[in-house]
Amino acid sequence: MHSREGDLRKAPIGVFDSGVGGLTVVREIMRQIPNESIIFFGDTARVPYGSKSKETVTRYSRQIVRFLLTHEVKTIVVACNTASACALEDLEKETEVPIIGVVKPGARMASQVTRNGRIGVIATEATIGSRIYSQYIQELNSKVTIFGKACPLFVPLVEEGLWQDPVTDEIARRYLTELIDCDIDTLILGCTHYPLIRSTLGKIMGEGVTLVNPAYETARELRRMLEEKGLLNPEEPGLGSNRYQFYVSDKAEKFKQFANSIIKYGILSAKTVNIEDY
Amino acid sequence: MHSREGDLRKAPIGVFDSGVGGLTVVREIMRQIPNESIIFFGDTARVPYGSKSKETVTRYSRQIVRFLLTHEVKTIVVACNTASACALEDLEKETEVPIIGVVKPGARMASQVTRNGRIGVIATEATIGSRIYSQYIQELNSKVTIFGKACPLFVPLVEEGLWQDPVTDEIARRYLTELIDCDIDTLILGCTHYPLIRSTLGKIMGEGVTLVNPAYETARELRRMLEEKGLLNPEEPGLGSNRYQFYVSDKAEKFKQFANSIIKYGILSAKTVNIEDY
Repeated sequence: MHSREGDLRKAPIGVFDSGVGGLTVVREIMRQIPNESIIFFGDTARVPYGSKSKETVTRYSRQIVRFLLTHEVKTIVVACNTASACALEDLEKETEVPIIGVVKPGARMASQVTRNGRIGVIATEATIGSRIYSQYIQELNSKVTIFGKACPLFVPLVEEGLWQDPVTDEIARRYLTELIDCDIDTLILGCTHYPLIRSTLGKIMGEGVTLVNPAYETARELRRMLEEKGLLNPEEPGLGSNRYQFYVSDKAEKFKQFANSIIKYGILSAKTVNIEDY
Repeated sequence: MHSREGDLRKAPIGVFDSGVGGLTVVREIMRQIPNESIIFFGDTARVPYGSKSKETVTRYSRQIVRFLLTHEVKTIVVACNTASACALEDLEKETEVPIIGVVKPGARMASQVTRNGRIGVIATEATIGSRIYSQYIQELNSKVTIFGKACPLFVPLVEEGLWQDPVTDEIARRYLTELIDCDIDTLILGCTHYPLIRSTLGKIMGEGVTLVNPAYETARELRRMLEEKGLLNPEEPGLGSNRYQFYVSDKAEKFKQFANSIIKYGILSAKTVNIEDY
C-alpha cells in the first residue's frame, strides 16, 4: 500500500467525519502540525451519524477507511465523536496504519482539569448511548463522576448557521440546565460541531466551568504519536503540491462554502466520491 | 415478478420515505383505502434526504424501489416530497409497476383551492431547489404565482418531538414571515413531516390561509388510480395476514416508537434491512 518511495513521513494524514464538523479538527492539525498534508473525507451524503446505530456507523466508517487507504495515508484521524465512540475499537483491529479518535484525548484532558471530580459530556445520542467518555475517564480516575447529555438539535442548528442566535441560546439552556444542576466544573464538547457554538455554551455554563474541546487535544495527541513513530514530516511540502485535499460523498459546492467559514487557509476544491463503492 | 397466483388486486402497496415522515401518508392510505395491505420502507439510516443532491436521492430511491419490488407490490407510493421532486421522473421510466409521488396531488389541490392565485410552498432545500411544485402548478394554471421557502430546521424539530413548543413557533415565524408578506392564500405543506406541526403553522399563517396536506391528496389519488386500473383489493385481508409491514434501514426500535405516535393501528413490528445491498 505504501509505495511512496520509502519516505512514509511525507505521506498525508487521513481525516474523516460524518460531515463538516470534523473540519474543527482539521483546523487544529493545520495549526499545530503545519508541515503535514491532509486528505479529508466528509460523509455529507449520510450525515448525521449521531442518530444512527453502532452497526451502521461502523459499516460507514469502514468504507471511509478503505477510501482513505487508497490515498496511501500514513495515519487516520477519526474526527467524529460518534464514529470514535461506535467504530474505533473495530477499526483499530482491522487497519494497517495507526488510527486515533477524538474521544480519548478529550477524556484525558477532562480528567486532568476537573477539580471537583464532576464532568459533563454533551454529544450526540449515539455517543452518549455508548457511554464511552464515562468508560475512558473512569479508567483514568475512578473517583470522577460523569454526567452525559444528548443534544440532538445542536448539529442542525450549527449547520443552519445559527451559531449566535436566541433560538440556539434557548435550546442550549434546556439541554444544559440539568448539567448545571449537577454542579459540574468541566464540560466536554463531545461533538465536533460544538466548538462552533462555544461562546453560547460558555455563557450559559458560566466562568466556573472549563470547556474541553477534543479537537485541540486530538491534534496534540496526533503530533505526539507521529513524533514517537518517527512519522512527522520533516519539511514543509513544496509549493504546488496538493497539500490539503477535501472529499465528500455529496454536495461538494455547499461543503466548500461551509468549510471556508471554518478554515482560513481556503479550501481550493472539494471532490465528490461515491463512498458506497468502497 | 408477480407470481401471486393471478390476483394482483390482493398484492400489497409499497410506500417509502426518507424516514418517518411518510407515515403521515401511510396513515391516510389506511383511512381512505382500508382493504389494502402495505409494505412501508423508511430510510432511517440515510435520513434526511432534504439536504442531499438530486443524484444521491435518485440513487437511494432506486435501491428502495428494488427492495419493494422483491415484495411483489402492485404499486409504489413515493411518500417523500424530496424523493418525489428529485427521483420520480426517472423512477417512472424504469419501474414496471405504477408509481405515484406526493407532489402532483398536492400541486393539483393547491391550484384548485387558491382564490387570489398566490400559493406558498414550504419544503426541504432539495424540494424547493427543484422548483417542481412551481412547474406542476403552472402547468395546471399559468396565472398562479408560487412562493417557495426552504425550512431545514422543521424536520429535526419534529423528530425531536417539539411539535408544540415556543422554539418551533419562533423558527416557524421566521420561515413564514416572508410568505405572509407575499399575501398567499394557500400554503402547501411540502414535506411529509410538516402535517405534524400543522397547528403551529396554521396559527402563524392565520385563518385566511388554506393549508394543503399532500398526504391526504395522495391517498385520494392512489385510490382513484387503483380503481381505474382495476387494482383495488375487493375484500379485507383475513385475520392473521401480515397486513401492514414496516422496514427501515436502521434503528427499528426507535422507529416503532415514533410510528406508534403517528399511526393509531399499532405497528406490530419493524425490521431492519441493509438497503445498500439492493
